[in-house]
Amino acid sequence: MILDELENSEHMDFEALQEKRSDELTELLDRRDMKQLQRRMEEMNEFDVAEFLTQIEDNRMPMVFRLLSKETAADVFANFEAPEQERIINSITDSELAGIIEELYVDDAVDMMEEMPANVVKRVMRAATPGTRSLINQYLRYPENSAGSIMTSEFVDLKKYMNVRESIARIRRIGEDKETIYVCFVISADRKLEGIVTVKDLLLNDDDTIIEDLMDRNVIFASTTEDQESVSEKFSDYDLMALPVVDTEGRLVGIVTVDDIIDVMEQETTEDFEIMAGILPSDKPYSRTGPAEMWKNRIPWLMFLMLSATFTSMILTSFEQMLAVQAGLVAFIPMLMGTGGNSGAQASTAVIRSLSIGDTEPKDALRVIWKEWRVALLCGLSLALVNFGKMLLVDSWLLHNANVTVLVAATVSLSIVFIVMFAKVVGAMLPLMAEKIGVDPAVMANPLISTVTDAVSLLIYIYIAKLILNI
Amino acid sequence: MILDELENSEHMDFEALQEKRSDELTELLDRRDMKQLQRRMEEMNEFDVAEFLTQIEDNRMPMVFRLLSKETAADVFANFEAPEQERIINSITDSELAGIIEELYVDDAVDMMEEMPANVVKRVMRAATPGTRSLINQYLRYPENSAGSIMTSEFVDLKKYMNVRESIARIRRIGEDKETIYVCFVISADRKLEGIVTVKDLLLNDDDTIIEDLMDRNVIFASTTEDQESVSEKFSDYDLMALPVVDTEGRLVGIVTVDDIIDVMEQETTEDFEIMAGILPSDKPYSRTGPAEMWKNRIPWLMFLMLSATFTSMILTSFEQMLAVQAGLVAFIPMLMGTGGNSGAQASTAVIRSLSIGDTEPKDALRVIWKEWRVALLCGLSLALVNFGKMLLVDSWLLHNANVTVLVAATVSLSIVFIVMFAKVVGAMLPLMAEKIGVDPAVMANPLISTVTDAVSLLIYIYIAKLILNI
Repeated sequence: MILDELENSEHMDFEALQEKRSDELTELLDRRDMKQLQRRMEEMNEFDVAEFLTQIEDNRMPMVFRLLSKETAADVFANFEAPEQERIINSITDSELAGIIEELYVDDAVDMMEEMPANVVKRVMRAATPGTRSLINQYLRYPENSAGSIMTSEFVDLKKYMNVRESIARIRRIGEDKETIYVCFVISADRKLEGIVTVKDLLLNDDDTIIEDLMDRNVIFASTTEDQESVSEKFSDYDLMALPVVDTEGRLVGIVTVDDIIDVMEQETTEDFEIMAGILPSDKPYSRTGPAEMWKNRIPWLMFLMLSATFTSMILTSFEQMLAVQAGLVAFIPMLMGTGGNSGAQASTAVIRSLSIGDTEPKDALRVIWKEWRVALLCGLSLALVNFGKMLLVDSWLLHNANVTVLVAATVSLSIVFIVMFAKVVGAMLPLMAEKIGVDPAVMANPLISTVTDAVSLLIYIYIAKLILNI
Repeated sequence: MILDELENSEHMDFEALQEKRSDELTELLDRRDMKQLQRRMEEMNEFDVAEFLTQIEDNRMPMVFRLLSKETAADVFANFEAPEQERIINSITDSELAGIIEELYVDDAVDMMEEMPANVVKRVMRAATPGTRSLINQYLRYPENSAGSIMTSEFVDLKKYMNVRESIARIRRIGEDKETIYVCFVISADRKLEGIVTVKDLLLNDDDTIIEDLMDRNVIFASTTEDQESVSEKFSDYDLMALPVVDTEGRLVGIVTVDDIIDVMEQETTEDFEIMAGILPSDKPYSRTGPAEMWKNRIPWLMFLMLSATFTSMILTSFEQMLAVQAGLVAFIPMLMGTGGNSGAQASTAVIRSLSIGDTEPKDALRVIWKEWRVALLCGLSLALVNFGKMLLVDSWLLHNANVTVLVAATVSLSIVFIVMFAKVVGAMLPLMAEKIGVDPAVMANPLISTVTDAVSLLIYIYIAKLILNI
């Protein structure tokens, strides 16, 4: 359909097509042509249907949702965010709800349950069959963000004594409702994972080949309690489509598929960004978070950092007299602190990211610090040089600031060198130390580094001023 | 193999197993048992072989690499980073090189070429067959980070008049060397994309079903010049395994597979982190970047921000006399600037991330600013309240700082409210404006926001001091 329309358009533009189709749906809805709307939605990708329904802002949304066939409804439901899911649950009958729950993949059902309020969870659990209910309960017990909490139970299992023909027949029989059929898992009678076999292997081998001779025993796997970040690293390292998850006895309990890992990666990245900006991480997207909740996530670090700045104030207070002796020194404090903060943030961000993609490990600490030391020396010297010229040229000569003498310019410039070196080395060291002791290195980012370098920058500046200006 | 070993181990621990096997390989190498080493490496995952070879630091590495069979060699080669690839190319014969080039997927070959120095590129091009050479040349012409530059040409194409049996036969015939066989692309005689069909569709339907009746015409596709970030958004939205890439005439020219998208996502995230820390983005991982290159990537923003701080210095200079009248005011400048910078960074980071995952768009600007305004009011008031109490309790009462009067505490606290409100609103606005005018919003992160809020915080503080303290 979509490609037929393209025949008449000049360029292949996916986005323009999407928009055109969304407009058509809205028009059908406004015309109340439910028959046609239903037909169109069934043809569409479930993500697009979910997007379309989310955009219907009035109370027609659940009504339109109910036009969908049972299977499409479950697929669309899985693509909704929590508020829409809740809205749908609250407007359908128990039997409709039961239909959706049974059609959902377990991982999607578990995702949903984690977000719903208690009364909705109760109603969903009542609607589910006993088997589904106990499966959901089991999955809900795995720690948050573990492999167990993101895995699903809908996989194809094979036995090693089967041949290719039997295996393909099994896939044809049970494959319809599996998250993936392309990777099949070979298990023993007591459900221990023995190997994996891909549909590619099956198709490229003779019908009579025995799975045991075909399967890859060299399986990449995860354990149920493993952190999802480590799971996603395996997908990235080994280019996986699906990863088996085993319990402590080596029994296969679920699989994680690559499409879920893409969501995990997005979520982990958002979390890193939040932590690095001094925000407590939350699973909710920005657009769905209210001001009160945002305040709750942001105020702890703001408060802590504000109070930590007391040290800087105390340093300034105790040297106030000294700084007043040489007028003009105070004016450069913000620039020095800013440069220290920025230099430290560069180093800490680079190291945090390098740790998180597995490019650097705590044992590389000496190499990292030696490298940052050299970078800092280069950066510090170039900044100092430019600053020295700028202070004499702009501040002294152009702006006639009598306070800026050659000695003052030298004081500020020399301070830059030491401040940058301190900031970069500490900025690189703190994330490494955090990783070493098992704290998330992302905490050691700009806000914290800046607060530390602020105080030290000031001390460096005051000490050098004493030395050069004899005050 | 790996799973047999597990039978004897108490826990299923993937990482411990990996380490044990790596140690074994090192031992085999040290014992010079090349026969056994070769056998082991052929059994292993190519990523692990590449890791093992990368860790061999002396000149035995190319020698060990040459133990690998032609096909494994190409797979391992694709898993190397640029320095190892160059080392291998420089130590193998032209015919070995030709063997690897022909076995590589085009996207991996193109990736490699983009990193190699000119003389190596020349040698590789000479070694390749004319067909491969012209394909590589064609792909190298697509803009960097476009769909064209990350796609590959190894896909299965079908015709709509084929039936399932013929399609499966075709997959069996040509599937061996394809990046994926699970999504097949239906094209017309003039190579226009008409639909897609999955192996699941093929397996779950009768042998005589015609592809035309089976294929999904509702294809998600990308154009060759589309940015890789937009391509990766499609994978995340639609849970794709592979995405067809078409030229302006709608002809299928390549496909992008999900494993490449995971690398793209990692790369894009690293780039965002770098930009947000004021580092010019580079493709090289931290551990591979030398100090001189790091200096080149870091100094531009440091320099620019240092010079921008001139404004703050000028403000301080011109109000120096006034600030000196009321001793103690200067001591709180770093805290105010820090709080402003941190507040702004929270807002800008949240908005940048929200924009980048498609959760917020520039047209939401008013809603975003209204929300940040309320969050800022809440944060500002709580910080001001705590600060007021802290200044009276700690600075005045506990530390006997005579300069801290009730009026000074009120000045500082009221300043906090306005500074936080300014910082959060500007921090949210700048990324939205950047996105609107087509600049990467990530630029509007902490370093830039801090420099802006530093100057404005100071002005707010001075103005409020004038008002309250009558100076």
